[in-house]
Amino acid sequence: MENSVGKVKTEYLKLDKTITLESGKTLNKVQIAYETYGKLNENKDNAILICHALTGDAHAAGYHSEDDRKQGWWDTMIGPNKAFDTNKYFVICSNVLGGCMGTTGPNSINPDTNLPFGHNFPVVTVEDMVKVEKELIDYLGVKKVITVGGSMGGMQAIEWSISYPEYVKSVIIIAAAARLSAQGIAFNAVGRNAILTDPDFNNGDYYGGKHPENGLSIARMIGHITYLSEQAMHNKFGRNFKEDKPNFDFGVDFQVESYLDYQGRVFVDRFDANSYLYVTKAVDYYDPIEKYGSLENAFDKTNANFLVISFTTDWLFSTEQAKEIVNALIQKNKKVSFIELDSPCGHDAFLIEWEKQTTIIKSFLSEVN
Amino acid sequence: MENSVGKVKTEYLKLDKTITLESGKTLNKVQIAYETYGKLNENKDNAILICHALTGDAHAAGYHSEDDRKQGWWDTMIGPNKAFDTNKYFVICSNVLGGCMGTTGPNSINPDTNLPFGHNFPVVTVEDMVKVEKELIDYLGVKKVITVGGSMGGMQAIEWSISYPEYVKSVIIIAAAARLSAQGIAFNAVGRNAILTDPDFNNGDYYGGKHPENGLSIARMIGHITYLSEQAMHNKFGRNFKEDKPNFDFGVDFQVESYLDYQGRVFVDRFDANSYLYVTKAVDYYDPIEKYGSLENAFDKTNANFLVISFTTDWLFSTEQAKEIVNALIQKNKKVSFIELDSPCGHDAFLIEWEKQTTIIKSFLSEVN
Repeated sequence: MENSVGKVKTEYLKLDKTITLESGKTLNKVQIAYETYGKLNENKDNAILICHALTGDAHAAGYHSEDDRKQGWWDTMIGPNKAFDTNKYFVICSNVLGGCMGTTGPNSINPDTNLPFGHNFPVVTVEDMVKVEKELIDYLGVKKVITVGGSMGGMQAIEWSISYPEYVKSVIIIAAAARLSAQGIAFNAVGRNAILTDPDFNNGDYYGGKHPENGLSIARMIGHITYLSEQAMHNKFGRNFKEDKPNFDFGVDFQVESYLDYQGRVFVDRFDANSYLYVTKAVDYYDPIEKYGSLENAFDKTNANFLVISFTTDWLFSTEQAKEIVNALIQKNKKVSFIELDSPCGHDAFLIEWEKQTTIIKSFLSEVN
Repeated sequence: MENSVGKVKTEYLKLDKTITLESGKTLNKVQIAYETYGKLNENKDNAILICHALTGDAHAAGYHSEDDRKQGWWDTMIGPNKAFDTNKYFVICSNVLGGCMGTTGPNSINPDTNLPFGHNFPVVTVEDMVKVEKELIDYLGVKKVITVGGSMGGMQAIEWSISYPEYVKSVIIIAAAARLSAQGIAFNAVGRNAILTDPDFNNGDYYGGKHPENGLSIARMIGHITYLSEQAMHNKFGRNFKEDKPNFDFGVDFQVESYLDYQGRVFVDRFDANSYLYVTKAVDYYDPIEKYGSLENAFDKTNANFLVISFTTDWLFSTEQAKEIVNALIQKNKKVSFIELDSPCGHDAFLIEWEKQTTIIKSFLSEVN
């Protein structure tokens, strides 16, 4: 595997301190799942924190075992000589608070009850996710960090520059927005509704029994529609039938149905329905504009160099929304570069268009660091 | 009620003949629910057939009783001196085959078993809907008709000009397309999936018990997202909370969630989940381009005057799709007028923007008839 970071292992950090959340609630003994690639330099200022999107995890690059056919979710971007060059940088990726891939979330054991949290897990925000990431950064001894993320990861990257301006050297925001649109909230809300009304949901306490797979699967299908552009769907599937002709029944009929059906089915094997509720809610709530009165105010303290990347056919986080970030930074005389990349891939472009992003990001990083 | 057609009654026609469907299956004793407004002239050529959208019904104008607060679904457009002027025209609207508002559909009694059809109802197509509408037109003695429809109704209006070219004088196609996009199919498919996986669905045989309300409600919510433009959602709800601040729980939190929740809940009281499966499938299947090799071929025999109307922010049936119809007609030297109306209302504009449509339609009808 050329330019791979090679075999890696997910590590786990258990925090001793109590984390106080935006809601006012607290969490004890939070565990953080994370991976690192490359080496922290002597000045401890060459770290890049990769923040993952809605359903990502800490395994961003490399492979877990020799026969592991699936590499980390951003392996195209992280490794020797890649966009995030592990020869130069100490790259960190952790699973978000509220997730289900090793960091404390609703499927974790509540230390107070020795049972899974389920619906007793407190609602967490992007700010809370970043607060927990800060604990990890401190533990690793990092003094300065470049924060990077696509989609929900972009929100975390932004929030780092707001919450911890003194720590953040640069911020790379990809296919993201300072806040979700009403339409984005609507899609998330319907997905959550599908989970919440699934009889197997059982008010979130389903861990001993059947999981709300139908609801989670529908939520994922809705998500996937928003991740692809209309053009990408047209190019991939058009109106083609799975078996060349209509079935005249309600089974999987068109190729696009087959795709969504598959995406729904495989998702329930790897993701927890409760986590889906919590992370989508965090995305819905994130709104530094409301919190600080304006995005300009939110960015008041940052001295970071910003790179904002959007994609032409991304309709979940549009170029218009990216420009809102850029304009606020310009208003405050902050350092910002912006590029809209041409891609037919919709929101998924941030995971697919690695070559275009590599050129831009390499150039940005070489100039600012 | 000014310019109202006044008190009206839904009538029912029972067909004696067997209807052979596109699938090859047959239906006996089909019932058609319909309403008429205005009078058929001596030449029997002043009829306008209004074709309804996905979840519409035969009650397009007027009111059913003196204390009926809800007028027909297109009352703004149908009546004395309105766009479809009942002083001049004999306006007809019928419920579609496969619907649940009086025309034979999956919730009707199967004459062979004396039980509701449920999943034994055959899959129907837009062509089948039009075939049944033709029976009604013949029964009413109509010799020439103007076919009109928005959304799925526009598909029926198109199909009339293809299936019965000698009967159709003019066609008004609003917020519609010759075929649904892959993205449109995807939204319908996820909605159907929500119904099909609802445990109360019971393979379509739920009429004696609890209906699959959760699934149907989710399908409706998904639909409503596609009916509104992003701009309309933003203007209507923005990111406002229902109760001014976040709840930090998974109840209805944002105003847009409240809207969707309401739309889902009221829909299950008026619409049958099986019908939702059948009518969305009919929309998905409709594709005269595939059937005739090209839209030009499909329109080969028509001599009708066409008016095609699209709306700037309609992303379910876009202006681009409307232009596909227009271009095919132009290619075949057919008579066609086209206008894209400026509206922030998305697909719903065809139900909302009655003033703009009235001006255009009155002008079109006065010129061509």
